[in-house]
Amino acid sequence: MSELRKDIISGRWVIIAAERSKRPDDFRPSPAEEKKREPASFCPFCAGNESKTPREVYALRKKGARPDRPGWLVRVVPNKFPALTRGLPPVPHEDGIFRWMNGVGVHEVVIETPDHDRELPDLPVYHIQHVLEAYKLRIISIEEEFQYKYVHVFKNKGREAGASLSHPHSQIVATPIIPKKVNEELYGCERLHRQHGECIVCRIIREETKLGDRLVLGNDHFCVVTPFAPRFPFEMRVYPLRHSPWYTRMSKTESLGLAKILKATLGKLKNILSDPPYNFYIHQGPNPNLVHEAWANLEKSFHWHIEIIPILTRVAGFEWGTGFYINPVPPETAASFLRPSP
Amino acid sequence: MSELRKDIISGRWVIIAAERSKRPDDFRPSPAEEKKREPASFCPFCAGNESKTPREVYALRKKGARPDRPGWLVRVVPNKFPALTRGLPPVPHEDGIFRWMNGVGVHEVVIETPDHDRELPDLPVYHIQHVLEAYKLRIISIEEEFQYKYVHVFKNKGREAGASLSHPHSQIVATPIIPKKVNEELYGCERLHRQHGECIVCRIIREETKLGDRLVLGNDHFCVVTPFAPRFPFEMRVYPLRHSPWYTRMSKTESLGLAKILKATLGKLKNILSDPPYNFYIHQGPNPNLVHEAWANLEKSFHWHIEIIPILTRVAGFEWGTGFYINPVPPETAASFLRPSP
Repeated sequence: MSELRKDIISGRWVIIAAERSKRPDDFRPSPAEEKKREPASFCPFCAGNESKTPREVYALRKKGARPDRPGWLVRVVPNKFPALTRGLPPVPHEDGIFRWMNGVGVHEVVIETPDHDRELPDLPVYHIQHVLEAYKLRIISIEEEFQYKYVHVFKNKGREAGASLSHPHSQIVATPIIPKKVNEELYGCERLHRQHGECIVCRIIREETKLGDRLVLGNDHFCVVTPFAPRFPFEMRVYPLRHSPWYTRMSKTESLGLAKILKATLGKLKNILSDPPYNFYIHQGPNPNLVHEAWANLEKSFHWHIEIIPILTRVAGFEWGTGFYINPVPPETAASFLRPSP
Repeated sequence: MSELRKDIISGRWVIIAAERSKRPDDFRPSPAEEKKREPASFCPFCAGNESKTPREVYALRKKGARPDRPGWLVRVVPNKFPALTRGLPPVPHEDGIFRWMNGVGVHEVVIETPDHDRELPDLPVYHIQHVLEAYKLRIISIEEEFQYKYVHVFKNKGREAGASLSHPHSQIVATPIIPKKVNEELYGCERLHRQHGECIVCRIIREETKLGDRLVLGNDHFCVVTPFAPRFPFEMRVYPLRHSPWYTRMSKTESLGLAKILKATLGKLKNILSDPPYNFYIHQGPNPNLVHEAWANLEKSFHWHIEIIPILTRVAGFEWGTGFYINPVPPETAASFLRPSP
């Protein structure tokens, strides 16, 4: 089992996933060795290879298809090399200046399609909606296990974005602690809610829609903007127009709207920036089965959303050391390239 | 001039360096175009090409050599494409939910050697000490301009670590605000100083030296450890044994000790991990000409140090979204590989 360790100065947690490590060579394979690791001929996520993954925990199947057999559209399986594994609620240990706990959590893979070569924006809208609904069902199910305070859904597309397999997939990691970045947003939104008397994201949506120069796309339920202070070139936020802290409270009509806008946005990224590697992730409120006391105002102050980061620049010594980011592309320029031409 | 913009929710600042941006292709050049950008035959940092950089602000020269001419050992020049530029103390602007100020600051390049192919650990100890002394002199000089609250010194080695030129160099960026990560450490150290009645880094050094399993190297003035909760495989910290918040207070004897231990540490990295890309940066107290009131306890609570990050894994959607890091190499394993064999 991996270990969660806390840096006492910054309060940052890390997951030490020991079992993966062997010799120094393993951490810096030669290009030839890297190639050997993922033979193009075999992919455990392709239809027909279901027996090569752990048994599925969810699948949307065609009528008559059987579990762990071909005939599925979207399939969710436990990660074969999990960063965190299910277990009893972890006991925090403290020994002098050191803090740690068992790496208890959940790590699943959402295989978005049986087709190895069709990326998310290439799929029909109804299929993307199935993927989004799969996220929702898994989050709800995991949140019923009370020890997981936060469920993080994210996608790494492309090797430079951290994907180790090229078959289209996303990941779900549930943690026994609320992540630092989510906490920062929760606190920030609560403070700004007190200050402005309304949800800050609702206000951002209103102002960005009025200004228009950072607005990329919009429909009845969602809008996409490049944020005012983005860390990365062409970074984007997808905001639901209806205020809600939780992704899981999204209606079917809304998830259809999200599928449409995601298809358009990721399609834009692919066409305009020559199919770059990217990450996206959902930021939402912590497990609603747990938060009522700690976050009394959460329901009003926090607004779930998706953040999309194309990988076009490299994070370096300046960023790692300061937490500042140098972004060579103003978000207004990025939005003007990404917006549909009039 | 670039612009500093603040994300109101997280409090994070970004530098929008607009003048660098042109067309979307510029942000995702083809491999052929990338190659074209840095012709192997020409390097502005090599001896003889002094006229291709802005005029030097510091150089350690051989006797009789003239400024901006060959004959130097270490040379510091303004960055030709600066992220921040010198100017009047920036006025913070606020318009509704948007916060920004002019991108005022300093951005310099420390050319570590005239020799294109000799990396830091390949240089003799006395030469590395010259580089470290150059950092010191430039920091002191920049700190005399009162509008810069923090001077950040860092090195990007290798393209994957963000270096755009391969000639050995480091960078200095002075900012009008104390960076978020430095602030987090300042607050963390102050809190822990109150709690423990001593500098937390002094305590970490004492405990790590006693335990020994994360200790990599040590001499009379410095030690190198893999931290208890490292974000990255083989991440290291270089700690001065004498408590001090400021790099610039280092004596000549101490900078010799630092040169020796840096040569050994970076040499280890090169040999054991097949010359990986890496970043290092100094974390020190803010501009001592400014901080006396805001950080009354800083002198006692903060302990300057260097953080070294080899680039062996990729930061992905999990890390970006949570601020957690998944590290496949326990620091005890990393230290055992890096330690000199008995």
